[in-house]
Amino acid sequence: MESGQDLIFRREYFLTPAECNPEGRMPLTLLINRLIEVATLHANDIGIGYATLSTHGHTWVLSRVAVDVSYYPKVNETYIVRTWVSGVSRLFSERDFEICDSSGAPIGYARTVWAALDVEKRCVADISYLAEASRFIPSEKDCPVEKPSRPMPVGEEHKKATYRFKYSDIDFNRHVNSSRYIELLLNQWPLEYHDTYRLSRFEIAYIHEAYFGEEVEVRLKDDGAGIRAELSDAGKPLCRAFLVYTPRES
Amino acid sequence: MESGQDLIFRREYFLTPAECNPEGRMPLTLLINRLIEVATLHANDIGIGYATLSTHGHTWVLSRVAVDVSYYPKVNETYIVRTWVSGVSRLFSERDFEICDSSGAPIGYARTVWAALDVEKRCVADISYLAEASRFIPSEKDCPVEKPSRPMPVGEEHKKATYRFKYSDIDFNRHVNSSRYIELLLNQWPLEYHDTYRLSRFEIAYIHEAYFGEEVEVRLKDDGAGIRAELSDAGKPLCRAFLVYTPRES
Repeated sequence: MESGQDLIFRREYFLTPAECNPEGRMPLTLLINRLIEVATLHANDIGIGYATLSTHGHTWVLSRVAVDVSYYPKVNETYIVRTWVSGVSRLFSERDFEICDSSGAPIGYARTVWAALDVEKRCVADISYLAEASRFIPSEKDCPVEKPSRPMPVGEEHKKATYRFKYSDIDFNRHVNSSRYIELLLNQWPLEYHDTYRLSRFEIAYIHEAYFGEEVEVRLKDDGAGIRAELSDAGKPLCRAFLVYTPRES
Repeated sequence: MESGQDLIFRREYFLTPAECNPEGRMPLTLLINRLIEVATLHANDIGIGYATLSTHGHTWVLSRVAVDVSYYPKVNETYIVRTWVSGVSRLFSERDFEICDSSGAPIGYARTVWAALDVEKRCVADISYLAEASRFIPSEKDCPVEKPSRPMPVGEEHKKATYRFKYSDIDFNRHVNSSRYIELLLNQWPLEYHDTYRLSRFEIAYIHEAYFGEEVEVRLKDDGAGIRAELSDAGKPLCRAFLVYTPRES
């Protein structure tokens, strides 16, 4: 491999007060944005980034994410995110992550599935041309948490709300920003609930883009193991998620 | 002055796609966050930062902001923010800003007024002990735009909406994040309006903190020169703003 093409990419971050949630911790949305950031930087480094895909008329789209966090960094703490390629197929690329505290002890893991979008046809693209990227899969690195599960419909919900996407929800791609999907889900619980419980496991599958002015239904159901959630517009699912809340350490 | 105590503080930034608004430009909320960031760094550098104030039981609070922008940075552009102290009195400190493009040409200015909060008494503090900070006011630096005007009540509005603050609106201080005030104001116009007009002048005066679950009224009135806006809860104003929209260059 050429220099700079490390199998495991590492980046160190510092959690500022302005980035914290009301509990003084790293918010889930920031964690997922950091995953996307290191994934993008690493993919660029090893030549499978947006620049490469765009020569084929394709672009990377994050399809599924699962995060398993035992400790969310506190304000003014340093944390480290590592990422590596864990799978490549004709339609998907998989990438895993390890999150560590400043001492290097693992505090969380994440697993992601990426698809390539054919920008013109607006459909999933064949990325067989990336097959040799499998040489970037490190032999010694394992991710000790489950992959994102198959996104299940919520079924008969126990809670329903509606929300219409506003100007501030829209990003550079002129779609609803995916962080806003997650915020909309978290907003279904009051502050006191978040003060008492933290998300120890979170899965999300992005299914359809949403647009300015679109009104969505938020549907939630506790299935015993966790909360199944779905955002949908007139029955068309936009995303499905699974949330496991655990009491915060005192 | 000791080394590191420059009268004019300068920081360079790069506008990433993830940071852009739907128009591919720097959002107003990001601009104001950058102002707060460089203000904080500079104040720390010259010894009038949070660390100094906290020894008196005080903390800095941004009270008023006016921004005047002729060009909002585009995606993947570099921009520079400069700041300096422009005034110090018994109750307020003033700080001005210049925003430049990568060639060094000014593309905007901002003027801010900061008060110190007595953390225990929850009231405005006397900061006479900072009087000698007036030596940090540069003699040669001028800010060629108007200071934030006195925050005026909206009077009889032409548009009214309501909004209840959610979990994601709350920050580390357990108040509504001030960016969310601004987003709530911008959300009163549809995407198409923002595509056609940009904010060439924006003023905001923060009056009261808002809390989780609080329902506020958004009231707007076009007074000819611009739009007067107010967020209030049962008649108690939380913030007042003034917005001037100008057609975007084609």
